[in-house]
Amino acid sequence: MAAKVQDVIMLFGDSITQVGWSDGGFGARLQHVYSRRLDVLNRGFGGYNTDWAIPILEQCLATQDDQQYVPKIRILVFWFGANDACAKPSPQHVPLPKFIENIKHAVGLIQSAESPYYSPSTKIILVTPPPVNTYQLAPELSDRTFDTTKEYADGVKAAAMASESKVSVVDAWTAIWKAAGEREGALSKYLSDGLHLSPDGYTVVYEALIETIKVDHPSLHYENLQPVFPPWAGVDRANPGPSVQKKDIFK
Amino acid sequence: MAAKVQDVIMLFGDSITQVGWSDGGFGARLQHVYSRRLDVLNRGFGGYNTDWAIPILEQCLATQDDQQYVPKIRILVFWFGANDACAKPSPQHVPLPKFIENIKHAVGLIQSAESPYYSPSTKIILVTPPPVNTYQLAPELSDRTFDTTKEYADGVKAAAMASESKVSVVDAWTAIWKAAGEREGALSKYLSDGLHLSPDGYTVVYEALIETIKVDHPSLHYENLQPVFPPWAGVDRANPGPSVQKKDIFK
Repeated sequence: MAAKVQDVIMLFGDSITQVGWSDGGFGARLQHVYSRRLDVLNRGFGGYNTDWAIPILEQCLATQDDQQYVPKIRILVFWFGANDACAKPSPQHVPLPKFIENIKHAVGLIQSAESPYYSPSTKIILVTPPPVNTYQLAPELSDRTFDTTKEYADGVKAAAMASESKVSVVDAWTAIWKAAGEREGALSKYLSDGLHLSPDGYTVVYEALIETIKVDHPSLHYENLQPVFPPWAGVDRANPGPSVQKKDIFK
Repeated sequence: MAAKVQDVIMLFGDSITQVGWSDGGFGARLQHVYSRRLDVLNRGFGGYNTDWAIPILEQCLATQDDQQYVPKIRILVFWFGANDACAKPSPQHVPLPKFIENIKHAVGLIQSAESPYYSPSTKIILVTPPPVNTYQLAPELSDRTFDTTKEYADGVKAAAMASESKVSVVDAWTAIWKAAGEREGALSKYLSDGLHLSPDGYTVVYEALIETIKVDHPSLHYENLQPVFPPWAGVDRANPGPSVQKKDIFK
């Protein structure tokens, strides 16, 4: 059984999160730079909208009674909207006001002192859905429009503004849109199928996410954390055991 | 706090494990195919030999009392030897008999009913150290020789044979050696610096590891596991909560 030696970064989202360990994906890159410091958990659920994801989020968070036994979520990255923004009558469609309400509810699960999952040490980072490229979308994904996804990206920012406690936003929509020179056709460099991210798209989001951590939560930037177990040069060769006891990652 | 929703595959080893989430790395690829089924934990410790790693392994395993609270390790991949095989007087050198003894001790921590960490549901897979390419080795890595590393690879197999319970072996040494046409100079396709793996080297090991899981532990092959939370088409849209309760991954 895996004892609790490292705390975690939880990437909670839809398919764009779930496939973030493919070549060039942001999940794998985060795990690489956070190795020996924090585990990066894949909690991506392809096709899910916020209505369906919230009862899953509740299961992924520990209740206050159980928190002593399990790794702390140091950073929760919450990234939805790509499916919520589907047009009616898609079953994935969530009306924009409900989408915003759902995000606020998710934030409240962690930030509200009345929540059974209250965890003031968890930093929340919301990510906006990326723009879609309607020239590139496969037929089965074509119930998305460029303008609607933009509204849902703005909805994520509105939800962050409405939070009582600090919530960071990584504006993936704007970062990718700017990278593409604000031309929808040029998004094909950053999107693999008009909706999901290519390695170049993940690079844009990864860099924006690392920058957000660096600015908003510098103590959690990977360069500012020490490894749980020491570099090998620090091992006492005559008596290794005491010198390799797990340490706090915060210097 | 991260509640226990997924069990894990723990990759426990030296730097070759630690950097397994870089481009093409075996850790990232495992997490990709096991998404929504098992978490893949990076427990790689650059520069470590088995003498130093065993007191860390003890901290990464839960005692029987704590096992109820933490994720089960369904597969433990134990991959050392690249540093143990350093020639004397390198501080990383571990004599071959002690290396074999250390592996047997590590296996016993999990498989012996007398161990405080006894976990009969954990499947152990030992991996042999890859061959080194002495034509390619950087000066600071040059206390390794081709023949010595081969002896340590054979030592891993000897340790597996000596175990009372089933222990699988992924023979990375032989798989990479054969891929290189049994020519040391041709190893540069599979090794980045004569010691660590290139993406092509990780591909060889990844495929051998997946094949070992498929043959020795088919119920744990990713294609035979169901997702913890259902595909989105299975969500009850009128009342999502009950339909997205976490499920056993074993069908």
